[in-house]
Amino acid sequence: MATITQTHGGVTTAKGFAASGVAAGIKKSGNEDLAVVRSEKPCTAAGAFTQNAVRAACVDRNRALLPSNDIYAIVVNAGNANACTGTQGKQDVETTALRTAEALSIRPKQVLVASTGVIGEFLPMDRVTQGIKSCAPQLSVEGGTRFAEAIMTTDTVVKEYALSVGFTKGTILIGGCAKGSGMIHPNMATMLAFITTDAAIAPQALDKAIKRVVDKTFNNLTIDGDTSTNDMVVILANGMSGVPVTSASELAAFENALYEICNNQCSQIAADGEGATKRVDITVTGGETSEDNRRAAKSIAGSNLVKTAMFGGDPNWGRILCAVGYSGARFSEENIEVRLCGLSVCRALRPVAFPADEMHSKLSQNIVSIEVDLGLGGNDVSVAHTCDLTYDYVKINAEYHT
Amino acid sequence: MATITQTHGGVTTAKGFAASGVAAGIKKSGNEDLAVVRSEKPCTAAGAFTQNAVRAACVDRNRALLPSNDIYAIVVNAGNANACTGTQGKQDVETTALRTAEALSIRPKQVLVASTGVIGEFLPMDRVTQGIKSCAPQLSVEGGTRFAEAIMTTDTVVKEYALSVGFTKGTILIGGCAKGSGMIHPNMATMLAFITTDAAIAPQALDKAIKRVVDKTFNNLTIDGDTSTNDMVVILANGMSGVPVTSASELAAFENALYEICNNQCSQIAADGEGATKRVDITVTGGETSEDNRRAAKSIAGSNLVKTAMFGGDPNWGRILCAVGYSGARFSEENIEVRLCGLSVCRALRPVAFPADEMHSKLSQNIVSIEVDLGLGGNDVSVAHTCDLTYDYVKINAEYHT
Repeated sequence: MATITQTHGGVTTAKGFAASGVAAGIKKSGNEDLAVVRSEKPCTAAGAFTQNAVRAACVDRNRALLPSNDIYAIVVNAGNANACTGTQGKQDVETTALRTAEALSIRPKQVLVASTGVIGEFLPMDRVTQGIKSCAPQLSVEGGTRFAEAIMTTDTVVKEYALSVGFTKGTILIGGCAKGSGMIHPNMATMLAFITTDAAIAPQALDKAIKRVVDKTFNNLTIDGDTSTNDMVVILANGMSGVPVTSASELAAFENALYEICNNQCSQIAADGEGATKRVDITVTGGETSEDNRRAAKSIAGSNLVKTAMFGGDPNWGRILCAVGYSGARFSEENIEVRLCGLSVCRALRPVAFPADEMHSKLSQNIVSIEVDLGLGGNDVSVAHTCDLTYDYVKINAEYHT
Repeated sequence: MATITQTHGGVTTAKGFAASGVAAGIKKSGNEDLAVVRSEKPCTAAGAFTQNAVRAACVDRNRALLPSNDIYAIVVNAGNANACTGTQGKQDVETTALRTAEALSIRPKQVLVASTGVIGEFLPMDRVTQGIKSCAPQLSVEGGTRFAEAIMTTDTVVKEYALSVGFTKGTILIGGCAKGSGMIHPNMATMLAFITTDAAIAPQALDKAIKRVVDKTFNNLTIDGDTSTNDMVVILANGMSGVPVTSASELAAFENALYEICNNQCSQIAADGEGATKRVDITVTGGETSEDNRRAAKSIAGSNLVKTAMFGGDPNWGRILCAVGYSGARFSEENIEVRLCGLSVCRALRPVAFPADEMHSKLSQNIVSIEVDLGLGGNDVSVAHTCDLTYDYVKINAEYHT
């Protein structure tokens, strides 16, 4: 059995990774906006990407390269998504990879590229190139947080998380950072997550693990229901722990740790959702299939009415039930139950009396839980993360004028 | 060719219909909350209903009765949705139909029932019964607007519309009213639309027409993406014009008129959306299939980011394109075009320069149009209606405390 414990840091926690971030002048604010993470040794790498048919060129390039056993680095810019930029945009992604490869003395195909920010504008390639040149010599183990800062757009806090996983053969470290808080001012932006580990794992196994975990975590994360053109989750594994992850039980333990990382990143993103005053955790059980649980959880997470009710501290189970109703999830009319902050509020489609004062106090916390048992007895659990819908969400997304 | 012209009124415009509304004490405000419309002669009747798996008992009862050739009346209460009320709720729907039938000297199965308002509370049946008794003697041709008023919840304006359709064999009248402005304070509410006509049309033909039209109109209407437990659109046709609607061309003309009525009702509901400052009309063309057009139109209408941009007067075509991208609609990357208020803003996924002052002025009107050509050459058109997402939407939906 592997033991999983939280540790410090993010993308540079695992052995052999160095990172940094610089202000390249892409963001109008002048904040850090170009970040690089690099491994000493070649990594197996895999990723999961936006399902949006309108995709940035960097997404397509990474999809073509992954899974791989020969990736060294990721370069990220914030402030410009390089999406809806046509042939020039594609060329700019190649140039970004080339300049990064030159600066790190590796090959362009060993570099992954990610962008977040405004769409429909060309990347200022002179600034990107200069940024890469100044960032490359600064890469360090201490630079993980600067990397995490430089990829932020409207995020208000850095989102890092790392775990240590003790196997019988030794310990691996896995950590990462994420950004995203809605699809963001000024035009739209993106959920990005980067995870690094020193586990020794084969590309196909890593690919399966990341896709399965993303399906249970990031794909259930909703701030406002909009999927960006640039979303991606990428994991690099450089094997430098010397601990192989190959047997079924090792792979399962690794996937558990990866789930914890991704689930934590989703929580952090939800808590920092645009305008959010609270995080809303939704857990659905009792569905005939896990797909039923997932549909119900995502439908609740996506409901503006549930999200405004949570903002108002209103124990409005009718809206929760309604979102289950139109989700397509099957449920038992006799056995369905809704719990809010641990208190039962509805059973068999009918109201259940609850202590109003206790509920009021629980709903004013900054983490609120919604639990639905679909009543059909399945053992699976589906978790979705979202936040409340507030005046500030509208303000952030309405007050920009192109 | 039939000629279609607008005329006055709503549910009592067609020959032989009488209506009224009274304050029965169901709404806490004391406003009108019980409405009845009745035809002199038996009507063919058909309807379209919420797809939500959590449905009010009145919805199930109407679904079981329709299509029919023997309906006389509709009774509607506002202020209480009688949803999530179990066996008692079912019994209360039957009692409502029975009391209405007694008051109108018809049979219970000749009465349709609709409710809108709070869920999870039992109907105050003494007040409902008393309301029916006081409403029935007041029914009149002049009472159409009182009917339209009594079915309102958070609506701020009455929503009536009527047309006269000139066939070679004579003229028919068709009119109706609707309510709905989001899923509404205090718990949730409902989109209801009632249409009456004096056309002579068979139940199956009426059923096909209403379902096809609802699919092109109400099913593309989005205020906040939430489908209520009580939504319904019902049409009664009493044949009293003496004009038969039987041939293919007559049926097509009738369906056109019905489309105009429903499309107009959708526009009125969108313009009166909770907290809305403007109506947003979305037109999608050029899809390979009409389903592609519909998906893209609904996806744009459902995007919080598009809706907040419209509130802010931001010509943010990136958000529009993004919503098309995740809709599942197929499009041509080379030929797709986005127009905002008639001005082209994006072609082939790339920005198009537009006059900023003119755009700014157009976006501050109270009706804004978004047009997307998917670029695959189809001839079909799909229209969706929505409104902007504003501070007041959040306020209306957050500030209620159960």
